[in-house]
Amino acid sequence: MDYSDVRNNARKIIGDKCKVCLECNGVACRGQVPGMGGKGSGNGFIRNVEQLKNVKIHMDTLYESGNIDASIEMFGRTFKYPFFAAPIGGVKVNYGEGHTDTSYSEAAAKGCYEAGTAAFTGDGIPEESYIGPLDVVGEVSGCGIPTIKPWGVEEAIRKVKLAEKRNVIAIAMDVDAAGLTVFAKMGKPLFPQSVESLKKIIASTQLPFIVKGVMTVEGALKAKDAGAFGIIVSNHGGRVLDDTLSTIEVLPRIVEACKGEMKIFIDGGFRKGTDIFKALALGADGVLIGRPYGVAVYGGEKEGVKLYTEKIGAELEDVMRMTGAQTIKDITMEKVEIVK
Amino acid sequence: MDYSDVRNNARKIIGDKCKVCLECNGVACRGQVPGMGGKGSGNGFIRNVEQLKNVKIHMDTLYESGNIDASIEMFGRTFKYPFFAAPIGGVKVNYGEGHTDTSYSEAAAKGCYEAGTAAFTGDGIPEESYIGPLDVVGEVSGCGIPTIKPWGVEEAIRKVKLAEKRNVIAIAMDVDAAGLTVFAKMGKPLFPQSVESLKKIIASTQLPFIVKGVMTVEGALKAKDAGAFGIIVSNHGGRVLDDTLSTIEVLPRIVEACKGEMKIFIDGGFRKGTDIFKALALGADGVLIGRPYGVAVYGGEKEGVKLYTEKIGAELEDVMRMTGAQTIKDITMEKVEIVK
Amino acid sequence: MDYSDVRNNARKIIGDKCKVCLECNGVACRGQVPGMGGKGSGNGFIRNVEQLKNVKIHMDTLYESGNIDASIEMFGRTFKYPFFAAPIGGVKVNYGEGHTDTSYSEAAAKGCYEAGTAAFTGDGIPEESYIGPLDVVGEVSGCGIPTIKPWGVEEAIRKVKLAEKRNVIAIAMDVDAAGLTVFAKMGKPLFPQSVESLKKIIASTQLPFIVKGVMTVEGALKAKDAGAFGIIVSNHGGRVLDDTLSTIEVLPRIVEACKGEMKIFIDGGFRKGTDIFKALALGADGVLIGRPYGVAVYGGEKEGVKLYTEKIGAELEDVMRMTGAQTIKDITMEKVEIVK
Amino acid sequence: MDYSDVRNNARKIIGDKCKVCLECNGVACRGQVPGMGGKGSGNGFIRNVEQLKNVKIHMDTLYESGNIDASIEMFGRTFKYPFFAAPIGGVKVNYGEGHTDTSYSEAAAKGCYEAGTAAFTGDGIPEESYIGPLDVVGEVSGCGIPTIKPWGVEEAIRKVKLAEKRNVIAIAMDVDAAGLTVFAKMGKPLFPQSVESLKKIIASTQLPFIVKGVMTVEGALKAKDAGAFGIIVSNHGGRVLDDTLSTIEVLPRIVEACKGEMKIFIDGGFRKGTDIFKALALGADGVLIGRPYGVAVYGGEKEGVKLYTEKIGAELEDVMRMTGAQTIKDITMEKVEIVK
Repeated sequence: MDYSDVRNNARKIIGDKCKVCLECNGVACRGQVPGMGGKGSGNGFIRNVEQLKNVKIHMDTLYESGNIDASIEMFGRTFKYPFFAAPIGGVKVNYGEGHTDTSYSEAAAKGCYEAGTAAFTGDGIPEESYIGPLDVVGEVSGCGIPTIKPWGVEEAIRKVKLAEKRNVIAIAMDVDAAGLTVFAKMGKPLFPQSVESLKKIIASTQLPFIVKGVMTVEGALKAKDAGAFGIIVSNHGGRVLDDTLSTIEVLPRIVEACKGEMKIFIDGGFRKGTDIFKALALGADGVLIGRPYGVAVYGGEKEGVKLYTEKIGAELEDVMRMTGAQTIKDITMEKVEIVK
Repeated sequence: MDYSDVRNNARKIIGDKCKVCLECNGVACRGQVPGMGGKGSGNGFIRNVEQLKNVKIHMDTLYESGNIDASIEMFGRTFKYPFFAAPIGGVKVNYGEGHTDTSYSEAAAKGCYEAGTAAFTGDGIPEESYIGPLDVVGEVSGCGIPTIKPWGVEEAIRKVKLAEKRNVIAIAMDVDAAGLTVFAKMGKPLFPQSVESLKKIIASTQLPFIVKGVMTVEGALKAKDAGAFGIIVSNHGGRVLDDTLSTIEVLPRIVEACKGEMKIFIDGGFRKGTDIFKALALGADGVLIGRPYGVAVYGGEKEGVKLYTEKIGAELEDVMRMTGAQTIKDITMEKVEIVK
Repeated sequence: MDYSDVRNNARKIIGDKCKVCLECNGVACRGQVPGMGGKGSGNGFIRNVEQLKNVKIHMDTLYESGNIDASIEMFGRTFKYPFFAAPIGGVKVNYGEGHTDTSYSEAAAKGCYEAGTAAFTGDGIPEESYIGPLDVVGEVSGCGIPTIKPWGVEEAIRKVKLAEKRNVIAIAMDVDAAGLTVFAKMGKPLFPQSVESLKKIIASTQLPFIVKGVMTVEGALKAKDAGAFGIIVSNHGGRVLDDTLSTIEVLPRIVEACKGEMKIFIDGGFRKGTDIFKALALGADGVLIGRPYGVAVYGGEKEGVKLYTEKIGAELEDVMRMTGAQTIKDITMEKVEIVK
Repeated sequence: MDYSDVRNNARKIIGDKCKVCLECNGVACRGQVPGMGGKGSGNGFIRNVEQLKNVKIHMDTLYESGNIDASIEMFGRTFKYPFFAAPIGGVKVNYGEGHTDTSYSEAAAKGCYEAGTAAFTGDGIPEESYIGPLDVVGEVSGCGIPTIKPWGVEEAIRKVKLAEKRNVIAIAMDVDAAGLTVFAKMGKPLFPQSVESLKKIIASTQLPFIVKGVMTVEGALKAKDAGAFGIIVSNHGGRVLDDTLSTIEVLPRIVEACKGEMKIFIDGGFRKGTDIFKALALGADGVLIGRPYGVAVYGGEKEGVKLYTEKIGAELEDVMRMTGAQTIKDITMEKVEIVK
């Protein structure tokens, strides 16, 4: 099995809900929620991908040759590459019958772990959709990041405690899920989080706490005030609000406001080694990749996840070689240029 | 019946004159006047829709949770949402046999009223196309805004007086109809309105008077000087002059010149809750929606109007929830960003 | 016969060489020289049309009503509209057998004359292609502008003298034909014109002399120094050099440098009343229209030319009405805005 | 045989690997490596072509007529035109069986030589792919530029010495091939070149040494510090790194930093006389053309190369005539304008 087999398998298995397009850019699946499209016009998803193309890379191969090392230190561990699998939940609804949230997370978390990286896992209703993935993370010595929904403080703390028991390396909350009214309809409402509520949740644990779903400087500063270890610049893949900016567009202003005070992750449209390089050059500490891991899991299970991870990792190393960046720290702003 | 039934019905009933496109953007109907297209190249209509896409929304769900209230006070009444049905006349010619101007307005005005908003109604030749809709407004306790053509002063005042008798909440004049030479050919010419002529008409009534069809700061200031209660920033859906700017582009400059001194409404390409939010953020006090209400009336009568109104209202509330705007006043300029 | 008959006839008669497209924009005929396309990539033609779309018109119907008058004074005469038919030569090669240069010019010059405007006529090899059109101009009391090629001084003066005998209102030279090496191959070379050579030619006559084919401020100043009555900002419809700017783009800088010292005409992509309005607003004294008159002649002869002229004239008056411009002098820069 | 025969032949002979498109712009062959496409998304190739379109040419035919001379002095010789055939290697893999690297170079080098210009030749594994083309250059009195891969210093110097024996006019190294890991897999690794390693190689020979594959000011300055005679601004046709800027975009900044201190060549998307003119106007001393020479060789052998060279040369002279540039030195920055 190679990566192209993974994609071909995925195309057969997933069918309508994700067309496994040559370029995963949100056009063919516009508005397909459930499914893998962006909300409404789909422009939140589409713009993520389009704006990444406007970051150009400065090639320069005139430098002293040496080894390329794409590893990073994070959460007290070393990761082979500076990118992670993003949390994906509700996979039966969004991709199809081939996986439960637990089996999906098992492939993602174990594949990433074996490839030297880690996966974020999801949360939902019923409890099993949180616990199942959590147990999987436990099985890979805690090397995964459970991502809880923006519950009320008490429920959030309860879920944080469940994560602590598996010795996870960090915990995240996708605060931009606050608008998913389907949770309220099922009797378990989600809430916007104030600095106060976040403070209480963060203070309840020693785990590094990551706030996922920040698109503004103001939002980033609120997460920082609440004591977050880091944020994930994310528009939830364009699935919770139409017509947002792309994540790569807002990254520089957030980096300027918060760099060094919190870790800054990003997701939204990242597909290739060049994409990872661009985010790092613009100041991100790490990148999350979502939909392509969905394809990798459905089309190749744990093995597909490894193949995709290694492919993107090798692509990143190739870009580093072509730009004279021998370590991740060498990937500076001067190595890219934003056009248009 | 749900909203998708409304659209499917409308597609069958209207047929050629409006294709009820997935995205109502003026492309398929370019130049179809009569019909629902923009004049000439159709770019006036098309640009309205396109430029709205360049206003991006800042998602931020980190705030103290609370109730969302999208209501506004206007004309001494409370409306559930800050948008209205725009006046549409000549429906037989532009949409087809399914409605007279009176039956169209009945569906629009009553549907809006029951949904907690209001409709603007139209004017034309013969007299019935003004009186019929006017009577409908009377039946919903005057909760509608008759919109007269730019007649000579005497005729205009006569029509204002007819409206007063129905206790309407306000009256409007679409001054950008001045170029419709078909009225002159039928013996009832329309005229450009000077500040002096507008002053006389406005002075003749206690009703709030709204000047519809303003695209420049100069035009807005003239309407203000004439004593207008408000203006509607509008290019008549691109149907009276080709190659104008879009309305959303000229809104900020007009807001800067007149905000607080007159009410500023806008129409032109507004289709979704996100669109309403964008106009309010850029300073509009209210939004008019045109063509989608045509689809709603033809495809679902009064019920279709209610369904569409509630759908857009709910979308607006969703955007408010995703941006931390709990009341309409919270929808400020900082919540959006114009790109390109 | 109406204008749509003219277009349908033309489509049948011309066939392959010009497709009489719905929008005459240079795309379908890219690179077709002979034929009516732009040279090479065709981008010189295409950009003329595209950039005109970026000039937007400010609608304002709040003004004191009055008569609309689109006439101009030029060459000591009054013209009903501020636009003219551009010179088109070699019609057998470029359009097809339906016309000789003489019969083409007869339809163009007489149709324009009867509609209250005038046509520019062409030049070429053999002599008949200059003399024939010249005689036609003589028949309409000299109301036409012969346009000679950039010959050597002696030959140019000879052709000017021939024009004087027909009492023409002015004479032009399309200096941008200098690169047409086909003339040299037939033994009658064309030349770039120095200020000195132009001076000699212009000094040889009392006729207003117009330099056609200027795209730079430097070129305009050279024409002025040589004593030209006016220039025509033109890239020869994109037919002599690929990848130039559009004419509407360079108009403002040329106007800024020369306005009031010479008449400034323009051609290139003008099709509609809105287009004429835009050029005048940006400072042009008059506009030439080329390819659409080719369609008018082939599809409707003299009558087609009249119909097209009246149609565009009425469109221009309509734009004037919608912008509060009651005379051509009222069409000022404030009435348009360049976007992008 | 004319040039259109050459293209038709090439289309038959090459088949799938290059479609010999009407416009050679990288779209149809996106990502086809091997084959002639750009790497990954193909955007490096595509942007080269697209950005050239944004350089517009100022037409001006008002000047004193005279002879057009497109020749340049370079490497102590006179060339009829300021452009050269770029090195293309691995032709069996990338184009198909019709040629070996030697027979390809024979057609290219001899065709260019006979047309008054010169070809760059390639390098590779096995040795024959370097020696064969080298011998061809020897046969045209050394009038060609062998282009070696970025080997280690010792191997590079060995290959330079082999070139010296054929009295070549100059030697180049495509340093941007450093990322081609396929060479390492075959036991002959390529390396990024430091200023120190380049210095050693350059110091080993009296031949003018050209560094090919520079995309940044920093890279250009390093080449200059190492003693290079010149650089070629190149992204390797988009084949070694995805999502770079286009070469024409970075040319002005490199010219500003280094003009007059080194020769500055450029390649990437140059197809037509207008393209050559644009690069010269923006400061290049010469231009390399790649893929179109591949088509010329496969479709017409040496004769095809001559035909294409003469065609582009004539086009360049035509642009010079239309802009008043009578020698290459007259092609200054004022003659073009970058739009968008």
